[in-house]
Formats: sequence, C-alpha cells, structure tokens
Amino acid sequence: MGVVLSDFRPVYLTEPVKQGKLREISIRFAEFVAASNGAGGPNAASGTIRAAWEKYCVSPRHIESRRISVLPDAEAAKDPADLDFATIPFTGMFPAKAGGADIDDRLATFRTHARAALERMYPESSDAPGELIHVSTTGYRLPSPAHELVSERNWFRTTVSHCYHQGCYGAFPAVRMAAGSLAAARSGLARAGGRVDIAHTEICSIHVAPDCLDPEHIICDSLFADGFIRYSAYADDAFREHGGRGLEVIRYADMTIPHSLDAMTWRPIVNRFEMTLSIDVPRLIAAHSEEFIGTLLKDAGLDLEADRGDIIWVIHPGGPAIVDLVGRCLRLSKDQISLSKDTLREGGNKSSATVPHIWERILRDPDVRQGTRVVSLAFGPGLTAAAMVARVV
Amino acid sequence: MGVVLSDFRPVYLTEPVKQGKLREISIRFAEFVAASNGAGGPNAASGTIRAAWEKYCVSPRHIESRRISVLPDAEAAKDPADLDFATIPFTGMFPAKAGGADIDDRLATFRTHARAALERMYPESSDAPGELIHVSTTGYRLPSPAHELVSERNWFRTTVSHCYHQGCYGAFPAVRMAAGSLAAARSGLARAGGRVDIAHTEICSIHVAPDCLDPEHIICDSLFADGFIRYSAYADDAFREHGGRGLEVIRYADMTIPHSLDAMTWRPIVNRFEMTLSIDVPRLIAAHSEEFIGTLLKDAGLDLEADRGDIIWVIHPGGPAIVDLVGRCLRLSKDQISLSKDTLREGGNKSSATVPHIWERILRDPDVRQGTRVVSLAFGPGLTAAAMVARVV
Repeated sequence: MGVVLSDFRPVYLTEPVKQGKLREISIRFAEFVAASNGAGGPNAASGTIRAAWEKYCVSPRHIESRRISVLPDAEAAKDPADLDFATIPFTGMFPAKAGGADIDDRLATFRTHARAALERMYPESSDAPGELIHVSTTGYRLPSPAHELVSERNWFRTTVSHCYHQGCYGAFPAVRMAAGSLAAARSGLARAGGRVDIAHTEICSIHVAPDCLDPEHIICDSLFADGFIRYSAYADDAFREHGGRGLEVIRYADMTIPHSLDAMTWRPIVNRFEMTLSIDVPRLIAAHSEEFIGTLLKDAGLDLEADRGDIIWVIHPGGPAIVDLVGRCLRLSKDQISLSKDTLREGGNKSSATVPHIWERILRDPDVRQGTRVVSLAFGPGLTAAAMVARVV
Repeated sequence: MGVVLSDFRPVYLTEPVKQGKLREISIRFAEFVAASNGAGGPNAASGTIRAAWEKYCVSPRHIESRRISVLPDAEAAKDPADLDFATIPFTGMFPAKAGGADIDDRLATFRTHARAALERMYPESSDAPGELIHVSTTGYRLPSPAHELVSERNWFRTTVSHCYHQGCYGAFPAVRMAAGSLAAARSGLARAGGRVDIAHTEICSIHVAPDCLDPEHIICDSLFADGFIRYSAYADDAFREHGGRGLEVIRYADMTIPHSLDAMTWRPIVNRFEMTLSIDVPRLIAAHSEEFIGTLLKDAGLDLEADRGDIIWVIHPGGPAIVDLVGRCLRLSKDQISLSKDTLREGGNKSSATVPHIWERILRDPDVRQGTRVVSLAFGPGLTAAAMVARVV
C-alpha cells in the first residue's frame, strides 16, 4: 500500500514582520520588562540590552521576516517607539509576575492561537478525517485543540492523536504515525478511513525570555517563528479517487546521533519551555549525514552519487549554519540548498511546521515534474536525525 | 498481518505502601508544607488538614496500597510520626519555594525515576528493538529517558517515538502506533524490525499538591500511583519465531464523548501538572459505553449479547465508581469486573500503565485459555474512550 501526502494548507494568523523591526521591538520589550522588574540588575540598563541584541540577534541577511502570533498586526504595524507593552495582550502579562507570564498563562495563549489556527485549517464545510494527528513541540494541554475541534464539529468518531514534544523533526514521526494508521487499517485492525490528517501548531513566540540576555537565548528568540499547517495522508487508492498533486512516501528512517545527548535540550520550566543549544550541533549532525542519507537512499532504490543531482533536497533550516554544513557533507550545490535557505530567510525556523511548509512550496511549483524525488532531513533533541524519501505524484 | 503484544515486564522501583499509612504520611507532609510556609492561611491548621484528608482520601476499601517513587522504601517503612520531610529528597524540596518544588525540579525527579525504570526494563543483555515508544502523561523533557537509553546502549538505529500527554488511555494510542509501524514496515516504508517496544513511565507522585485541600485534589493525590511497564509488539511471523504467550490485536477504536470537553483537564502549571475532574465523568463515559463497545465488537466479528460471558473484560479503573458504572452499562457480572477492581485495589490508578499491568496479569494466569477474547476500555481527557479487542495466543 502506498501513502500520499497532499492538500497542504498553511494558515497565517498574522502578517510577517521584518527582522530588523522585530529586533527593535524585542529590545524595547526587554527594556519594558527590566523597567517593570525595577532597576538594579545588570540587564536593566538599556544600553546593555541593546548591545546584547545587536550582537546576537540573527541577522536580517539570514532571516528577512517572521510571523509572531503573540504580537497583533495592529501593534506590529506601529513604530516600535510607540508600543505600549503594558496594553498588548501577551506582553502585558510580563510585569505581573517575576520572569514574566507563567507557563499556565503562556499555554493558555497557546490554546487561543492553536484553536484559531485549527479553525482556519478546517472551514465549516470540511469532511471529518478518519484521524487527526496534532503535532506540537510548543504547547500541551488536555483537552487539546484537536479534541476541541473534533468535539465542536461533532466528529466523534475521528481518532485524535498527539505527536508532542519531538522538536523540529516532528513532521517525520507524524508522517510515520499517519502511514502506520493507514497500513494498520488496511490490515483490518481499525475502520479504514483512507485519510489521516496532520495539523501542526507551533507557537514558539509564547516561549520568549526578554529578560534573558544570554547569547543562545537571544539567538533562539530571534530565530524561531510561529507556524501552522495541515495536510492529509491518503492511502494510494483514496488519493487516486481524490486527485490533485502529492508526495508519495517511499521510505523513511531516523537515527540517534552518538554522544550528543547534551547538545540540545527542551524542557518545561516555571515560566516557559526552555531550549539549550550547544555550538557543536551542526558539526554533530553533519558528521553523520552522508552515511545516514546514503543508506536511506539505497534502501529506497536510489544512489546518492548517481541520483544526487535529480533530487529536490529539503534540509530543515534549523539555523543559518546547519544547511550549509549538511549541504557540504552531502556535496550539494548552492542551488540544491537554496530552497531550504530561502525558507529560513522568508520565515525563520517554524519548528516542526517548517519542513511541511517546504513540501507545500514544492507541490505549488509548476516547474517541479511528476516523478521527481524529494529527500527531506530534519534534526532535533536526542540528537535525532529523521529523513524521508518521497516522489512527486 | 497480525500484531501480538508480548513480553510484559512490569518494573517496581519501590515497595507498595498501605493506603492508611499513605494517608497519614500525606497529612504530615501537608502539615510540614503548611508550617514551612508560615502560619496564617486556613490550611496551616493541623486540624483542618487532617479533617479534609480523612473526609476525601480514597478509602482503603477501594485502594489497599500504592507504590510511590518519590518516597524511598526506608522512609516509607518508618512510623509516619518519625518522618523528617526536610531531609527526604522529594519532599525536602517543598519549603524552598512557594507552592513546593517547581515544574523543573519535579521533571528532574521524573527523569531520575524514569531512567531507573528504563534501565530495569532493559537488562544489559537486551536486544535493540526496531522502535521504542515511550509513553508518559506525567513527564516530558528532551532528550527523553528513551533517548538516553538508546544512546547509552549504542542503539543508534532504534527509532525513538514519544506517545505523550494522552492521559490514562495512553496504552491505546501506543499500541496503535506500534501496530502501524509494523504494518508500514511490512509495506516497505521502513526497515522491517519485526518488534516495536512500548515503555510506560508514569510518575504521578511528582505532581502532588500537599498544600491544596480541595476535595478533588485530595482524591487525585490519594488515587494515583506510579507505574512502569514495558512490552513488545511483534509482527505475527516474528512472534511465532519468538514463542511465548501474547495478546493478538484484533481491532481497536476510539471516540470523543459528546459535550464533555470540560469534564477533565490536565495541564502544566508553575509547580506541577494539574488535573481537574468533574463528578460527571463516570456518567458521561458510561452513557456511551454500550454503543461504542457494541460497534467495536461487531467490527471484530463478535456480538456483545452472545459473547459477553466468554470475554475477559478490562475496564481502566480510573476510580472506584467508573468500573461499577461501565460494568452496569455493559451488563457485566460482578465476577467480570473483578479483575479491574482488584487492580485498583492492589495498586491504585497508575495512569496509562494501568491497563498494561492488567494485560500482564491475564497472560500470567494459567487458567486463561488460548483463544480467549480480551476486551479493554480506557478513558481520559477529551473526554476520549479508547478500546481494543484482542485474543490470547
């Protein structure tokens, strides 16, 4: 049985904001938080905040703009000097408690935006999927936004699954789950639905720490964006009936990178989910890319040397360095990594929603021919590398 | 392709403690927290604490004993009057911060016990599974305890999957994922492993709130226990080669209960994961049990009326009321629900690990004959009901 990913529907809750403007807003937000907490700490000095952000903020050369759900369009459109952070819903929660809004406040904000995104992914006329897999690395509450959607739509027989806390490579376990569900239904273990939906809601912007001037925090706060996208996995016969364009899943694999446990962490703390990131991450991942991808391609009946040039390459743009480095290890040309770099430049790192946004872009491109192979690769805590070979159909 | 669950291996990190003794320890722990926070609040009065706990603590009639990882055996063995909470690792963290240990402290404790449990589930001589699905509703950190295990064992090609934040019915999505992985590998989408492992680590005891005397909190704090169990899902040919006893998965299904979104919630807050529970939960679930199970049985080629008596029934013992109520709706005899009630009585509600502990018990029972059907049912936030029909092989 084949599985085809199709009907990609990205959802945008806000307009993109230029990176330079976001930097200025972040500086003023950090100054507002420092002032609210009272003078005294070294971070309270406006000059210190500005100097740190100007030094460590990801450059507009790498990221032109990002979408940030917690900043309403009307506020983002203003001159940053005119922003009154005390009255903006999300930022206004910051002075109330030490360290800003607590994790419950932030996950309540997650719920609001995730619900809005799911509503937009499913117009009222939508059919019920057999299963809805909700993917997130940035917010967990029960009932989940997916429970809320199926309940409000009276989709009581839609299975709700959660694919949570997997990091930037979250689309890969979600596709594995969807393909597995379709295959298991085909073997008679469940009612055959023919269609499993995957909905990503990544709201990285609720986990900002404007009072933290550590270089790695400023990098994370200026690298990540929010991302919302849904797509469907069809059994091949259901896809033929449905029609349209899609990515047929041919083969997937993943691996844990040796001796890399501490290189990336992601954990709930009092007032947000906190990430730590070692500077070794790109090197650790790149060191294993060629063997990992070479073996996967062989398993899929392809050959890295012979087929490299005919493949569309999708490398999760976790940050500016990783795409270049992995591209070099796989001996890809500048053109072959431009899709991944353009995605980072045009929208930042949308965590698990990033790779599906690239898939959507590939299927929208009229120059991409039927039969073209698409090889996708993403990384996250573990360190884990996950990859998939697909074919445009 | 068939899928068989086998090799159930429960792990016990601590000895069971009698419910009456746990009640006394909880009362003294709450008094210790109240005293640490200073006098003043109404809860500080020792008499108030004792009265509330004596009124709302789940009775030893329903739960004889529970295992609590955060209380070392040597402490649990003492007379509660002799406990010095300030020196016990977990409880000693409470006076340090308002509301007790914060979520980061608690999840660090989760990590310690989950790692210890996984080590015990996998003796050094263990073979690498093709995939390891880590199931938890009580702790999420990346890298996860499963990442740590595969990394330390050099199982770099074992796929790590997380089945998180699904509540007490978590074994059902985990079995779905495992069956799906085996079926997808059979269709050539991944390397065929033949064996997918599922490991539950539920450490409910890190989420206690001794300073909270609300009835529903006392019920939760006296109902839940810690549970650790692993088992393997085999493709049928791999199982035949492996031998032994198992549960062949025949059919599964789940549903969202209409108009029940607010009846149960589970969310990360500043200092723990917090549960809310409406008194309507048993009624809401029971109202749909007959139709839900009747349809599932029909899909599995069985008939509720004709086959009821020959089936071994597993009803997740979420609390004392639910098993009786669901049993009545399905018109089961007292004997038919005794397995579920005994499990609650002997160990409390171990969240997602509870049902797998019952499966283990069924397979250990020499009186259970090959071919016997086992129908299992569990519930959680959504509200969600999940069920599975299996056969002893």
